[in-house]
Amino acid sequence: MKVRLRNPDREVELAGGRKVHEVLRELGIDPDTVLVIRERELVTREERLAEADEIEVRPVISGGGGMKCRRCKAPAVVELRRHNAAFCRDCFLRHVHEQVKRAIAAFDMFGTDDRILVAVSGGKDSLGLWDVLLELGYRADGLYLGLGIGGYSSRSRDVVRAFAEEHGATLFEVELAEEYGFDVPTAGKKGSRSTCAVCGLSKRYVFNKAAREHGYDVIATGHNLDDEAATLLGNTLRWQTEYIARQFPVLPAEDGLARKVKPLYRLSELETAAYAFLRGIEYVVEECPLVAGNTQLRYKEAMNRLEAASPGTKAQFFLNYLDRGAPLFAAQDAARLHPCERCGEPTTARFCAFCRARAQILGERLGEPPGGAEEGERLAEPRGGEGAGQRRTGDRVEDEREVVRALSEEVLPVEIYGRSGA
Amino acid sequence: MKVRLRNPDREVELAGGRKVHEVLRELGIDPDTVLVIRERELVTREERLAEADEIEVRPVISGGGGMKCRRCKAPAVVELRRHNAAFCRDCFLRHVHEQVKRAIAAFDMFGTDDRILVAVSGGKDSLGLWDVLLELGYRADGLYLGLGIGGYSSRSRDVVRAFAEEHGATLFEVELAEEYGFDVPTAGKKGSRSTCAVCGLSKRYVFNKAAREHGYDVIATGHNLDDEAATLLGNTLRWQTEYIARQFPVLPAEDGLARKVKPLYRLSELETAAYAFLRGIEYVVEECPLVAGNTQLRYKEAMNRLEAASPGTKAQFFLNYLDRGAPLFAAQDAARLHPCERCGEPTTARFCAFCRARAQILGERLGEPPGGAEEGERLAEPRGGEGAGQRRTGDRVEDEREVVRALSEEVLPVEIYGRSGA
Repeated sequence: MKVRLRNPDREVELAGGRKVHEVLRELGIDPDTVLVIRERELVTREERLAEADEIEVRPVISGGGGMKCRRCKAPAVVELRRHNAAFCRDCFLRHVHEQVKRAIAAFDMFGTDDRILVAVSGGKDSLGLWDVLLELGYRADGLYLGLGIGGYSSRSRDVVRAFAEEHGATLFEVELAEEYGFDVPTAGKKGSRSTCAVCGLSKRYVFNKAAREHGYDVIATGHNLDDEAATLLGNTLRWQTEYIARQFPVLPAEDGLARKVKPLYRLSELETAAYAFLRGIEYVVEECPLVAGNTQLRYKEAMNRLEAASPGTKAQFFLNYLDRGAPLFAAQDAARLHPCERCGEPTTARFCAFCRARAQILGERLGEPPGGAEEGERLAEPRGGEGAGQRRTGDRVEDEREVVRALSEEVLPVEIYGRSGA
Repeated sequence: MKVRLRNPDREVELAGGRKVHEVLRELGIDPDTVLVIRERELVTREERLAEADEIEVRPVISGGGGMKCRRCKAPAVVELRRHNAAFCRDCFLRHVHEQVKRAIAAFDMFGTDDRILVAVSGGKDSLGLWDVLLELGYRADGLYLGLGIGGYSSRSRDVVRAFAEEHGATLFEVELAEEYGFDVPTAGKKGSRSTCAVCGLSKRYVFNKAAREHGYDVIATGHNLDDEAATLLGNTLRWQTEYIARQFPVLPAEDGLARKVKPLYRLSELETAAYAFLRGIEYVVEECPLVAGNTQLRYKEAMNRLEAASPGTKAQFFLNYLDRGAPLFAAQDAARLHPCERCGEPTTARFCAFCRARAQILGERLGEPPGGAEEGERLAEPRGGEGAGQRRTGDRVEDEREVVRALSEEVLPVEIYGRSGA
C-alpha cells in the first residue's frame, strides 16, 4: 500500500489489509492531527485499507471512525474532540459558517455593506476565510504579498490566483522586492530582526497602507484559534502586558491604522484545514521553509500536548482570556501614534519600524539624527543588547506600537497584500 | 556497570568504560534533570565511568562536566543553565542561601524574632527549606502531617524525624486519621474531590489551625519555582483570575488565616534537589504514589519542555508575573471570610470546605439546611456537574477562598503539620 506523507513530501510502502488507525500508529502519527485521504475522499480511523490503496496522510484533521454526525446522524467525516462531536461534510461546513458568524457578531466586526480586504497567503486559513466570507455574502477582496521566498512564494501566488479566478473574486498583488527593494530572505540575513519578525512587520505595513489607500473598511486575517492560543501563551510566558492587551479579535481603526479583524478566532487549525479540504480549496500544504525553529511553533507544540491530554484547553485559554483576562489588561495599551517622518504611516517614534528595518536592510541612512547619533545608532543596533537576564527572540527591544504588533503576532502566514487585479 | 534508577526504584546493567552523558543518552535521560552519584559523590557529565562502578541516577539535577565554579573557579558540581553558570559545592550552597535571603527580603517575609512553622513532608523542598532557615539563624520549627498513604507516609515520617533529631530541632506531628477520622486514600475514594485536592485542602486546614493555636507568626512552605510556574500556567490556561491573584510568595494574615510564605520561590526544583543532596540531607526521593495523572505534573512537563528549548522560561514566567502581572490581578481577590459554624476556621460559606469534605467522607450530616435541602445537596454533590463546556479537574465548582487555595496549589507535598514533640 502506497502512503503519501506531507511536510516534507515523501512516499512510503506499508502493509495494507488493516485499519487506518493501525497504519497511523505504525507511522507514529496522532490521528487527531491528520486527514487521511483515499481517492479524494476522507477515510475515518476505523476504516480498513486494502493492499492496492493509495492514501495521503495530510496534516491536519481527524477522521471520525464509525461516528455519526451530531446534527443529522449521517456518517461523520470530521471529529472534533473539543466539542465532543462529529459532523458529516455538509453539517461541518455549516458548523464553520456558524462559528464565523458568531465571531463577526460577537465583536461587530463588519456588516454586509463594508468593503473587506482579506490577507491571503495561499494557506488553508486565509483561503478558507475568503471562501467563508464570499459564501456568507460579504464584499471581500483578496490581497497577496509576494515575499520572494523562492518556489514557496511562487506556488502560493499561483494557488491564490487560481482561487480568485475560480470564484470571480478581485485579487490585488504586490511584490515586496519590486515595491520596496528587498525580499524576506534578504531581510532575514541583513537586518537586525529575525526573518519571521521582519516578515510580519512587512505584511502589516504594506497591508495597512493598501487598505487605507484603496478605501477598505476593514482588514481580515486568517488567524485561527491555534495561532491565537500560541501567541497568547508566548506573550503570557513573558507577561508582556502591552502585547497581551492588543491581542484581540478586533482592533479598531485609529491614528492611521486600519481596522483589523480575525473572524476565524473560534476555529482550530484542524477545523480550518478540514473546511478548506471539504470545500475543495486547493491550498498550499507546505510550510514556509524559513519558519523552522520559530518560537511560535514551540508554543503551538506545547498547546497541542496540553490539548491532547485535555481537549478544550486551547479554546478555554483563549476564550476565557477574552472574557476574563482582557478587561484587566485593557489599560496597558496606551501608546500614542503619529505619522512616520519618512512614509507617513503611524508610529510612536520619529521613523516607523518598517522604514527603519528597510533602511537597515538596504544600507541607507534615515535623515540626520535629531541631536546627535541617535538614529545612526538605531540602524546599527546589534542583534543582542537588551537588559541583562532577557533573551532575544525576534525584536523585543523597541517600545513601539508597530513592533508590539510584529511581536504579538510573530508568525503571520496570512497577512499579505497585493496590488493589481487578478 | 550497575546503574540504580529511581522512581520507580530499579537496577540495570549497562556497559561501562564511557562517559556519563553517553550512559544517560542510552537511558534516554536528559542530563539536566538528574544527579549522577558514585560513592556518595556527584559525577559530572564528561566523567568516564568504569565497568566496576556502581552509580545512582537520581532526579533531579545536572552535573557541570568539566566546568569551573563561576565564583571561585574550583571544579563545578552543579550547572545552572538558566543562570549560565556552574558552582562548586560551597559556592552553590551559598548561592541557595543568597536566593532565599533575597526572597525573604523582597517580600519582608519574616524577621529573626518571628516564630516560623515549616511544613515538612520529608521531600527535598521542605527539608531543604527547614535546613536553610536553621542555617540562616531563624527560629524554625517543623510540622509533619501523616496522610496515611501506606509505606510512603511512614518512610516520610521517619526521614523527617531523623532530620529533626540530627538538627536538634522541634518537630510536631499529627496523624490525619487519628485526629479527623479519615486518611487521604479513603478521602480520594469516598469524597467528591480528587485525591490531590482533598490532600491539599487537609494540609492547609490542619496547618493553619496549628499555626494559630501554637502562636506561630508565619507558616513557611517549600514551594519552589517549578511548583509556582506550573501552578501559574494552570491558572492562566483557565484565566482563573482569583486564583492568579492569590498566587503570591506572601499571603498576609487576615480573618483567621495565618500568614503564609514561600521562601524557595526563586529556586528551581533542580536547585532544591542539589541543595538537599549536597547538604547530606536524607530525603524521600520517591513520589507520592497517588499523584499519577495529576494535571499539575502535566503543566510541569510543559514548562520543562519550554525551559529545555529556552533556559530561563520558567523564571521569566513567574518572576515577570510578580513584577508585571500580579498588580493587574490584585483587585480580583475580594473574598470576605467569617468563621465556619462547625469548627471556627475561616470560610466564605456557612461551613468550611474541610468540614464539608470531612462530613462527606465520613457520611455525616453538617447541621440542618438553612431553608431546605441545600446542605444535603452540597454533600451529595456529584463528581461532574458544573457548567457546560467546562471539564472538572479537582474542585473548581465552589467559589470559596479555601477552595481557591486548594486549587491554586493543587499539589502540595510540603504543606503538612504535626503535633507532639520529636
